[in-house]
Amino acid sequence: MIYLDNAATTFPKPESVYQAVEYANRNLSFNAGRGSYKLAREATKLIDETKGKLLSLVDAPGSAKVVFTPSITIAINEILNGLSLVPGDNIYVSPYEHNAVARTVHLLCKKKNVQVIEIPLDRETLEIDVERLKYLFSKKIPACVCCTHVSNVTGYILPVEQIFRLAKQYSAVTVLDTAQSMGVVEVNAKKIGADFIAFAGHKTLYGPMGIGGFIDVNGIKLNGFIVGGTGSDSLNLEMPEKSPEKHESSSQNIVAIAGLRAALDEVHVKEFYEDEKRLTEYLIQELQKIDDVTLYLPPENVRVGMVSLNVEGYKAEDIGLILDEDYDIAVRTGYHCAPFVHKWLKDEDYAGTVRVSVGRFVRTEDIDSVVRAIGEIVGEI
Amino acid sequence: MIYLDNAATTFPKPESVYQAVEYANRNLSFNAGRGSYKLAREATKLIDETKGKLLSLVDAPGSAKVVFTPSITIAINEILNGLSLVPGDNIYVSPYEHNAVARTVHLLCKKKNVQVIEIPLDRETLEIDVERLKYLFSKKIPACVCCTHVSNVTGYILPVEQIFRLAKQYSAVTVLDTAQSMGVVEVNAKKIGADFIAFAGHKTLYGPMGIGGFIDVNGIKLNGFIVGGTGSDSLNLEMPEKSPEKHESSSQNIVAIAGLRAALDEVHVKEFYEDEKRLTEYLIQELQKIDDVTLYLPPENVRVGMVSLNVEGYKAEDIGLILDEDYDIAVRTGYHCAPFVHKWLKDEDYAGTVRVSVGRFVRTEDIDSVVRAIGEIVGEI
Repeated sequence: MIYLDNAATTFPKPESVYQAVEYANRNLSFNAGRGSYKLAREATKLIDETKGKLLSLVDAPGSAKVVFTPSITIAINEILNGLSLVPGDNIYVSPYEHNAVARTVHLLCKKKNVQVIEIPLDRETLEIDVERLKYLFSKKIPACVCCTHVSNVTGYILPVEQIFRLAKQYSAVTVLDTAQSMGVVEVNAKKIGADFIAFAGHKTLYGPMGIGGFIDVNGIKLNGFIVGGTGSDSLNLEMPEKSPEKHESSSQNIVAIAGLRAALDEVHVKEFYEDEKRLTEYLIQELQKIDDVTLYLPPENVRVGMVSLNVEGYKAEDIGLILDEDYDIAVRTGYHCAPFVHKWLKDEDYAGTVRVSVGRFVRTEDIDSVVRAIGEIVGEI
Repeated sequence: MIYLDNAATTFPKPESVYQAVEYANRNLSFNAGRGSYKLAREATKLIDETKGKLLSLVDAPGSAKVVFTPSITIAINEILNGLSLVPGDNIYVSPYEHNAVARTVHLLCKKKNVQVIEIPLDRETLEIDVERLKYLFSKKIPACVCCTHVSNVTGYILPVEQIFRLAKQYSAVTVLDTAQSMGVVEVNAKKIGADFIAFAGHKTLYGPMGIGGFIDVNGIKLNGFIVGGTGSDSLNLEMPEKSPEKHESSSQNIVAIAGLRAALDEVHVKEFYEDEKRLTEYLIQELQKIDDVTLYLPPENVRVGMVSLNVEGYKAEDIGLILDEDYDIAVRTGYHCAPFVHKWLKDEDYAGTVRVSVGRFVRTEDIDSVVRAIGEIVGEI
């Protein structure tokens, strides 16, 4: 199989990640931080070390805390539902959001009577229109701005630093979704201006399934959302007051955390960015040679990791099926859990896009294979 | 190490569980149900099979659905927060609840202005006082009754069938927490009268960390709580309407599910119950021979899996430390994330209890070792 669905889950993982998961599953599957015995303490140490590596990766300020959750979706639910919003508050989201954000803010609207406003795009380039956003903020003051770092549909790298800098002029709470960036695109907590940086272990960080979370950069108070046992202060019906304890109920998934720790040891952001950028541009360059292929491309300087495309005369899904069955190539097709962006891409006739996403272990030959396959499919029309 | 903390996480797991996790981590870590390629479909098949095994285990009616969540805590949050409650509604919980339930209903009280009522106990035996409960229900009609099956502090097996039968006379929604029972104590969905049966993968089922969920027995509508991408109907900002899709946002942890599937193949409830019962009674019998040890015992016919105790003159935590450091025996000490029961046990002077919990791989010699160790500690006073 040629695997080009790395934006869903990166595959394969570094060998050390597999070994760490296997080791922890057999030898360290205990309830960390809640027992007084050696292996429970060892599990706690592993968690603390992993958090330390994440804080280093994003160059976090000393007061920042890492909260582990079982997925980035849960992290985003925990953050957005934890905000102290009042009816009429404006939550800004980009049109590139995943349903982890889009459905969460939609539900918040109904529960708390807040407004969701989409950050405006330039109609031509589909880049964030910073000037119009500036104007919009002045008219409808933002209480919260939640933004993905890299689009999981087009690979567009959003100007989140600019967006959050504007948001902070209104003291809005800023939330960054790094599912498609952390580990490949630089995420610097001191520069980027996000109060909360949500991350997924199993995507660009190359960790295993089952671990995600967020970095609480500035200690902004979040109300409790998911609650449960913390192994601490058990007689208190309130969760502990602060991050990370407040947001880490139930047994920590020490097996997945062990895998993430190993994964973090293998991360070299600059090198990986250059590799993925080279592969992405090569993919684009080769696809552009094929007639009847529509590419949904952000400008060259702000794209990485994946390409969305369609082939004239085919639904996106059909291309996925042919690539799987006739070529053993794995891509993803459809709307990619991103509800807003398709009205900009105007891909409804194809029922979404075919997304080819590269990764650390993708070779130039793999790109050649998928391009050749698409060329053949087009040739058969 | 002699491991007697099985009520926190069972250890070890069957060899097949370790192998299944290792295999799935290396070969099947894909986003199930969201791709059109072979391995994504294989992941989907694995999930469906695992759900089928769970439904068989509890002899569920044909319409029942399994919802996977990353933990039982999240399952309980999803259920209780999803109920259509109105201010003034009464939620009954037992005094044996874990903070996964206790803190969740406490937060619900504040958010929805509902009342939490503790199910009454018999002062002598600390069993559920069914007669008084009957009276209480008639005075304060239950909207929801949420109950653990087996206490994670004393191993008391609650008469949940009776409790839920009474609750159903008022059409209350019934929720069962089987964290300490499924796989060891019979859970029969057709008999037990629960609308929702929450389960933990990593405890009495002997699966890995990172997987839990609930069985939606009767299709009672739950509102959305945690939301996100489902890989289906992506343009819709609402979650799909029904279980399981409505409650399964974000990538499924296929690695943990593969481990759970293997674990389910090894479950033999009747045999395991008898083994654990024998070990528990032997532990009690031997501990009763030691002076200065207080045992917190439910009646003999309704206890299994663990024993809570204290040693005169020691805090619970100190006993845990001595057992770890001097004897390499792992037990758990303190309040065990169960906030209500300690006022009944009257263990505050000891700051909780020392909990010795048995499991599938505990041998009679292990019981002898912990009893001998406690005897020696007492002898040193």
